[in-house]
Parts: sequence; structure tokens; C-alpha cells
Amino acid sequence: MAAEYNICLDIGGTKILGAIFDSKKKIIYRLKKKTKSGGDSAQNVEEVIISVVDEMIKESGIKKSQINAISAGAPGVIDSDAGIVLFSPNLPWRNYDIRTPIEKKFGVPFYIGNDVNVGVLGEWKYGVAKGYKNVVGYFVGTGMGGGLILDGKMFTGNKFKGAELGHMVLEPEGPLCGCGQRGCLEALSSKKGMTSYFQQQISRGRKTMMDGQIVNGTFKSKALKKALAEKDAVATEAVDRACHYLAIATGSIINAISPDIVIYGGGIIESSGDVFLEKILAEVDRYCMPSIRDTVEIKNAALGDDSVLYGALSMIVDK
Amino acid sequence: MAAEYNICLDIGGTKILGAIFDSKKKIIYRLKKKTKSGGDSAQNVEEVIISVVDEMIKESGIKKSQINAISAGAPGVIDSDAGIVLFSPNLPWRNYDIRTPIEKKFGVPFYIGNDVNVGVLGEWKYGVAKGYKNVVGYFVGTGMGGGLILDGKMFTGNKFKGAELGHMVLEPEGPLCGCGQRGCLEALSSKKGMTSYFQQQISRGRKTMMDGQIVNGTFKSKALKKALAEKDAVATEAVDRACHYLAIATGSIINAISPDIVIYGGGIIESSGDVFLEKILAEVDRYCMPSIRDTVEIKNAALGDDSVLYGALSMIVDK
Repeated sequence: MAAEYNICLDIGGTKILGAIFDSKKKIIYRLKKKTKSGGDSAQNVEEVIISVVDEMIKESGIKKSQINAISAGAPGVIDSDAGIVLFSPNLPWRNYDIRTPIEKKFGVPFYIGNDVNVGVLGEWKYGVAKGYKNVVGYFVGTGMGGGLILDGKMFTGNKFKGAELGHMVLEPEGPLCGCGQRGCLEALSSKKGMTSYFQQQISRGRKTMMDGQIVNGTFKSKALKKALAEKDAVATEAVDRACHYLAIATGSIINAISPDIVIYGGGIIESSGDVFLEKILAEVDRYCMPSIRDTVEIKNAALGDDSVLYGALSMIVDK
Repeated sequence: MAAEYNICLDIGGTKILGAIFDSKKKIIYRLKKKTKSGGDSAQNVEEVIISVVDEMIKESGIKKSQINAISAGAPGVIDSDAGIVLFSPNLPWRNYDIRTPIEKKFGVPFYIGNDVNVGVLGEWKYGVAKGYKNVVGYFVGTGMGGGLILDGKMFTGNKFKGAELGHMVLEPEGPLCGCGQRGCLEALSSKKGMTSYFQQQISRGRKTMMDGQIVNGTFKSKALKKALAEKDAVATEAVDRACHYLAIATGSIINAISPDIVIYGGGIIESSGDVFLEKILAEVDRYCMPSIRDTVEIKNAALGDDSVLYGALSMIVDK
């Protein structure tokens, strides 16, 4: 059987995940690769993708002729209709037509979308949000990504700039966010937000297991998991604070949109079991109109690291 | 020519506005009528509409056979696909099939939707938001209504409960809102929110022209207009505060959705010229991601009291 495989990529600022899906949507080969961190403007966007896809074909043993399509999620503002990366914060891509060179090289269709949007799409098509019509997704990592499925379609707003749910402003006089505003959800509840809290508490002389774990303004999820397990007071406070603001943001977006389901994903959510979800659930009702709260589910994402890969698959399958 | 007229209604808790549109979408007859205020559970929903429509036909001199369709906006949660009022805060309607009796009585199609959603629809089809694809609308009155046009369609979320933009939570420890939460936009920036501010300042012994203007927890827009014109300090502070929170809410929803345009309507916005808009514009950039702010317009609604009537017309015309 020809053209039975789909190659899907999750392109991050520091690593690329790849998967080859067979016609039954099973992953038959996986790749994980570190990328050069951003700023190398000489780096050619299609070279990265081409080399990774070439490597996946070679290592998996499939033939080029067996590839049906290639698809990717990447950070930034992406015109997924045209296959153009308009802007990417961590990658040296500006108004870059990435579709044409990839399609030319491999002779198959190539799709690309914003990684968080694509991740929510994956959870909607193959994960916890399957079958719902209106989905709100938060992906908590170093930053805070957001994605929306509205009326049964991925919603990306004007000029593909939505949905920056991590930049809803919760504390107008609060901590500075990377985006230049103050008190965004990202500045309060992401790893960066939690890192600020750790640094503040450490500078006040408090002891915490998170001291020494902070590298480049963030930390590893498993370090936090360990600190929580050992009831580290500062780590617990940081998570309580992150969940407090996630609960407020969740309540506001539930009232504003009346979605069917809100989901939380990302390494830190996943590695902590239901710690985040339970804290959010304990508080969120305070910020939801009861009549709207009654008809919305609030759950953790189900696909873990694979949500972007499955979302990329869905971009192929649903075309 | 038969069936050339459309009858459109804006059904409020205290008054009904009606208009007869001709085939050129001109209003040829208007009606304004006080309704009994809510709570009279014996009051029959279709009786209200039927009597108003009957009166409009009689007074305008058109014939029943010249009516093409009837359409209405009303407060509450409304299944506009089925023509069922699921819940209405100020009207004694619960899971009420209103379409069937009206269509039976007049023999023409009847459409109904939530008044704020329908008002935003009117501004989108015939007003300031014409031609845009993603529209966010705030209607500031006694309460604070919200409406969304997303991807070129009215968006009402799960079970028709969206879009309660007035109940995004901005101050979790702030003033109590009618919905039971604290610090909703409505509790801060609507007439009810401003009224709380006036009452607080009056109880502190401050003098204001708004003293004596407050009836049933609200006030008339023209009283505020006059106080602003005479540079009443407390009135100015209340508007500054209302616009401060409107700016934060607007920034958050702009970041979350990336709309093409945000519009403000409602009596108090309209009667104050550009006072609200200018104050919001002076502050909103602080709460918007610059890259998203670049592609969104922020304007006042254009149709005044007629936005719901035009939205109701659009429900007929676009069917």
C-alpha cells in the first residue's frame, strides 16, 4: 500500500519531537532531537524540517513514496491556510513561506499551525476533549499557551494571532510579563511566574528545595514534583498561587465563552498528577456563574507530550 | 407586493421597542411601550408579543398578509435555533417554546435570540462592525451585556449561554455582583457598579449631583451626562473607574481572542458622546499585547437604541 504514513512534528525552541503515524493512527516511529536555541538567523527553517524528516524516513525504514503528508506545530503566529510563519518568538522566522519548499522537497502536502492551537486540536480530535464543540485549552510550560475550539472549529482570530489566553491580565499592577504587560496569567501561573515567586522568597531568606533548581528563569517539572512530594512550603505556596490565578482566568473565560470543556496540559500539569487540577477545581466555582458552570467540564489533557503530534495528524486527516 | 414588511422587537424587562422594516430595510413605523416589570408569573409570554405585534399592525396600517416574518431580541438564555426561551432573569419565562404560538397566530416565521447577542449582530450587519469577521461587543446599561461574532457567525457557546463578557472577574475580592460573584466587570463598570460607587462616596459625606438620582440601584444616563458636563468630581471618578475596568477587560479579551473590532454600546455610552471611549482608549494599550493591538479596532456602536431591532432584522434576512 502506498502513501500510508503521515509524518508529524512538534517544533519547539529547544527541541523537536517527531512521529510517524501509520494508516491506523498508531505511532510506529518516534524521534526526539535538540535544536539550536533561537537567535541564529542564518539557520534556514526548511533545513531543520527537511533534515528531521529525512532522518525519520531513514531511521524508520519507510520509503519516501509511502509518505502521505507532513504536518507540524511550531511556536508563533502562523497562517495555517497559507503555510506561512508570520512571526515566531523563539525561532528566526518572519513571514516565511515554509509550505512551498517542504512540499517541493518531499512532493507531499505540508501543513503547519501554532503549536498550542495544534495541541488543543489534538486533544479535541484524539484526547480528553473528543466530541465537544467548544474547547478552551491552557498549556502550562515555561510560558502559558492557549487554544480555542469554537463551534467545532479551531479558532485563531484575526490574522492568526489567537488565542493568547496566557495574556489575559489578572493583576494590572502585578509582576512584569515577558510580553511587556503586567500581571498576565503567564506572569503569575507559568513556570516563569513560579520562578519569580521562588526567587522572591529565596531573596527573603526562606529555604526551599527549589533553590538551585532555577536555570534560565525556569525549572524542571520533576524538581517541582519532588518538592511538592516533600511538602516544601515555598513550592506549595507557588503552586497554590499559580492555581489561584488559573482558577480566576478559567472562571472568566468560562463566563465569557460558555465552553463545553476546559483542559489543562503541559509538562508541569502532567508531572504533578492531579495536584493542579484539584486546587483549581476547589476554587474555580467562586469565579463562574453557577448556571454556566453547570454545563462545563474541567479536566486535564490526556495525550501528554503527544498532543501536538496528534493535532498535526488531525490537520492532515481532516483536510 | 405581498409580504414586504418585517416586524422586529426589542423586548426588555421594563419596555418593548418595536419597528416595522420595509423591503428596503427602512423603518416605516416605531412603537415604544412599557411592560410590567418581572415577577408576574401569570403573565403569558406570547400574549405580550401578540398584543404588541397586533398594535403595530393596527397603528401602522399595514395588512397582516404583508408581513414576511417577525423577530425579537429578549434578555436571557435563548435557544435561537428552536425558538425557546430557556431562562430569563427579568421575565417569567422558563423553557418556554415561544416560536410555536407566535407562528401559529400570525402564520409567518418567528425568530428570537438573546438581546445583547442580537444587538451585536445588528452592529455587525448594519452598524459599525460591518464587514469584520470577529467582533466583541459590550453593552453597558444597568447591567453589562456581551456579544461575540466569531469567524463570521454569532457565537453563543454551549447551551446558548455565551457571551457573558460582563461577568469576567477583574477583582476577586471586589464588590459583590448580582450574579453572586465578586468583582465582575458588571459590578465595576455598569450603572449598577457606578451606583455602588456613588452610594459609597455619598455615605462618606461627599457631595455629588448624582445624590438623589439613584432609583432602584441605577440612574438615568442623562443625569450622569449632566454631572459630567458640570465636572462633578464623584461622577468623574465613577466614570474613570468604570473605564479603567472596561480597559482591563477589553485588553484581556483582545489578547484571548484577537478580534477584528471591539465595540461599546448602550444608553450610557451613547449619551456621553466619546467620554467613555476616549478614557478606555487612553488606557487599553497597557493591557494589550502590542502585536495583537495593532490589528484590532476599538469603536462605539453606531445604531444607538436600534441595534437590537436591526439585529432582529438580520435574523430574518439571513435565514
